[in-house]
Amino acid sequence: MTRNSKQTSPRQLASAGVRPTSYDVALLAGVSQSAVSRCFRPGASIAAKTRAKVLAAARELDYSPNAMASGLITRRSNLVAVLISNLTNLYYPEVLAEITRRLSDRGIRVLLFALQAESDVDASLDQIWRYGVDGAIVAARLSQAQLHEFARHRVPVVLYNRLGDGEPVASVCCDSVGGERQLIDRLVAAGHREFGIISGPDDSYVSQERVRGAVTRLQDHGHSAHVVKGAFDYVSGESGLKALMAMTDGRIDALVCANDLMAIGAVDCARIGYGKAVPCDLSIVGFDGVAPAFWGNYRISTIRQPVRRMTEAAVTMVVERIEDPALLPEVRSFAGDFIEGASARLAPAR
Amino acid sequence: MTRNSKQTSPRQLASAGVRPTSYDVALLAGVSQSAVSRCFRPGASIAAKTRAKVLAAARELDYSPNAMASGLITRRSNLVAVLISNLTNLYYPEVLAEITRRLSDRGIRVLLFALQAESDVDASLDQIWRYGVDGAIVAARLSQAQLHEFARHRVPVVLYNRLGDGEPVASVCCDSVGGERQLIDRLVAAGHREFGIISGPDDSYVSQERVRGAVTRLQDHGHSAHVVKGAFDYVSGESGLKALMAMTDGRIDALVCANDLMAIGAVDCARIGYGKAVPCDLSIVGFDGVAPAFWGNYRISTIRQPVRRMTEAAVTMVVERIEDPALLPEVRSFAGDFIEGASARLAPAR
Repeated sequence: MTRNSKQTSPRQLASAGVRPTSYDVALLAGVSQSAVSRCFRPGASIAAKTRAKVLAAARELDYSPNAMASGLITRRSNLVAVLISNLTNLYYPEVLAEITRRLSDRGIRVLLFALQAESDVDASLDQIWRYGVDGAIVAARLSQAQLHEFARHRVPVVLYNRLGDGEPVASVCCDSVGGERQLIDRLVAAGHREFGIISGPDDSYVSQERVRGAVTRLQDHGHSAHVVKGAFDYVSGESGLKALMAMTDGRIDALVCANDLMAIGAVDCARIGYGKAVPCDLSIVGFDGVAPAFWGNYRISTIRQPVRRMTEAAVTMVVERIEDPALLPEVRSFAGDFIEGASARLAPAR
Repeated sequence: MTRNSKQTSPRQLASAGVRPTSYDVALLAGVSQSAVSRCFRPGASIAAKTRAKVLAAARELDYSPNAMASGLITRRSNLVAVLISNLTNLYYPEVLAEITRRLSDRGIRVLLFALQAESDVDASLDQIWRYGVDGAIVAARLSQAQLHEFARHRVPVVLYNRLGDGEPVASVCCDSVGGERQLIDRLVAAGHREFGIISGPDDSYVSQERVRGAVTRLQDHGHSAHVVKGAFDYVSGESGLKALMAMTDGRIDALVCANDLMAIGAVDCARIGYGKAVPCDLSIVGFDGVAPAFWGNYRISTIRQPVRRMTEAAVTMVVERIEDPALLPEVRSFAGDFIEGASARLAPAR
């Protein structure tokens, strides 16, 4: 139903069910399109007579001012792009709901990009520029070149749970290394000997940090670990445990999973597949604090990310940078909350 | 950084880090703003000389055409609003990811509205009109008045897993009544006698349909059921089972939950809280087919919604209605997939 208003009158268009634009209102009111804009822009000056003409035409056509049209004048779209990979990972729906609610409280809408994989950003960038978003919150992997593109298009970006690739970028993180350090310290102090680790996918920054944190801390204590690769899903917990059981001839007694969902899969596999008691025969720890980790059957010993504080920080940081593009990068790293749970034998906290 | 281009030159604005608009390009190129629009609109006619001037100015200012500006000309924003309540309900993240991916494949972006409750739509409507979305997919409760607002603003709407409130609206559903009928038939045929039902929240259409389907079918078989209210979450499965155990002096032997998450909570509560064997002592069925329902510890007997087919249908229907606003309403109701699971004693399928 795309029409050119030079060929068809605004009244004809409206009665044909075509949505009116400010051009149509201007034509019907016999004023300039700029007069229509001024009429609907708070604080703009406009003659009373012109204003009355515009309002009458707007009423007749059932026109309401369009955020996109206003955006051309204010240079603000009041849109923030949110890029999230892995929306079906149980952790991210909560993050997305919190970010959306907090932006909405500030009158800003979310333009959503759900990526198939961490590194699948390129396809979204063109769209981000086209919609003239005011800023972006990104929970996906950005290359240096992609970060430069954001800078070139003057779109401030805040990274969620990852850092810039070699250069400072505004970002909000949960402290993975600190969290793993706590988990390992209390597993080691409880007397565990044979450690296994299930990582996340290769392109996940969070996985890299958590595995590095765990391995480094085990080395501090004079321990090593068998590391197998997972995909942050339930099935990876099962298959990871099976691989580690084979590698250690069943001797593994402590399993560190790079997220809760894999820890949950490992608990079920240990009990159902191997008849092991958790945590008596095998201690299993996770990371994130997703809802199912707290279910009665699992009670995963884990580090809970402070999602409310982290999403509030991400939203505050992006809004600050929309208002003042010259603000320098800042990294806010939040300590996670140690959840004792019941899936691991842990030494008492010091 | 909002500036009026009459006061500051486009070059000054650009070097101050302000994002250029088509007005700035027109000013610098010394052409009309309409010439800039035509330059970037596929198929529009423009003199070669004018085009060269525009492109040179655009290059100098690092301007790229804005989807919002084009939207004013084409009357399309290429935005579809997606309204979802209860994003942390395990069922909806998958729905949102699928809808976003399928719209994106068609060059359409998602403007996301995450509602706190089903009936919390009003606050979003103004924003929806302001962004001039081309259409909407709504998984929340719309009143007749709200549906009329969509019609008045000429925004085609497709309802997801609910019907119009008393009048025909385009919608995609999973057949709740048919699914419950199958579950009840096979529970009754297996000899269950004392039935309990845990519903969802009062304002949920899906809950109303599932409870109605189950109660009606039980009556067909000469059975009644104790119904308690839940909130579609894990804790409601626990508290619902406790209430039903008290109401029946522990005699309940079949529990019908209006979604999987409550069935999962009930399984844990039956085993951990009451030491009951599931399904020997108590059969528990759910609805949805969310990922955790398939985990080894639960294997919930349930009806899986065909999410891929349903989201594809919703996206197709909204796009059809954007292209032809005169299309009449259509309701597409998909049968769910019966999943045997291991949480209920069921008579063999006939």
